[in-house]
Amino acid sequence: MKLLNLDHVAIAVEDLDAAIDGYYSRYGVKPLYRERVESQGVEEAMIPVGGSFVQLLQPLGADTPVGRFLQRNGEGLHHVAYAVPNIEAALAHLTSEGVRLIDEVPRIGGRGARIAFIHPSDLAGTLVELVELSET
Amino acid sequence: MKLLNLDHVAIAVEDLDAAIDGYYSRYGVKPLYRERVESQGVEEAMIPVGGSFVQLLQPLGADTPVGRFLQRNGEGLHHVAYAVPNIEAALAHLTSEGVRLIDEVPRIGGRGARIAFIHPSDLAGTLVELVELSET
Repeated sequence: MKLLNLDHVAIAVEDLDAAIDGYYSRYGVKPLYRERVESQGVEEAMIPVGGSFVQLLQPLGADTPVGRFLQRNGEGLHHVAYAVPNIEAALAHLTSEGVRLIDEVPRIGGRGARIAFIHPSDLAGTLVELVELSET
Repeated sequence: MKLLNLDHVAIAVEDLDAAIDGYYSRYGVKPLYRERVESQGVEEAMIPVGGSFVQLLQPLGADTPVGRFLQRNGEGLHHVAYAVPNIEAALAHLTSEGVRLIDEVPRIGGRGARIAFIHPSDLAGTLVELVELSET
């Protein structure tokens, strides 16, 4: 297993436009991408900060994973994503370690990347996403 | 305001050794630094991932900020930290924007860095730390 990068930290928000404006007025940063990802039930904005991104996630409806997160927790940190060179190899390694996966096979996320989520009950209460970017 | 980097994402844990072991067995990464920061009531481990760190935080006692976080939320994502070139200038800008600060003047955190926290009620329910590293 090899982690290439801390690809992004994701924050669940109620109002994507307001959060983007807030990040710009306070921290002087703004999205490089903005994308509706139907398969994950979100509209997301990717704000580059150094070599990583802050990902702002607004749910497309209440009955989506991020919608349920907001109802339970309110706005806040949602998950952390690590870039890996080979997502199948990474998932095979995690399976061999007995890790509880949410996605046993990769699916397509934002930026056309291949992604998979690891269950937060596995380690340190943290929802982890693995990302294999098409550029790598 | 300028953000240089996503310095770290911090995760509150009950057992630092177990979390370090878990990160190593699953993700093949291990701490570059480990430090007891009495002023923040934590023992912390900094795991490099690409150009950022995953910071694992174990409270030194129940009556500390991270101890109270664990009692309220359990283990999980705690805050995100951005590196800035000049922390006084950053705090002055945030004050001019009406942002609610936790630290109005910088204090010393891990790695000898000058740090300040921004209240999570300010933006997207996220506890934000600004870090001015001595190297910058």
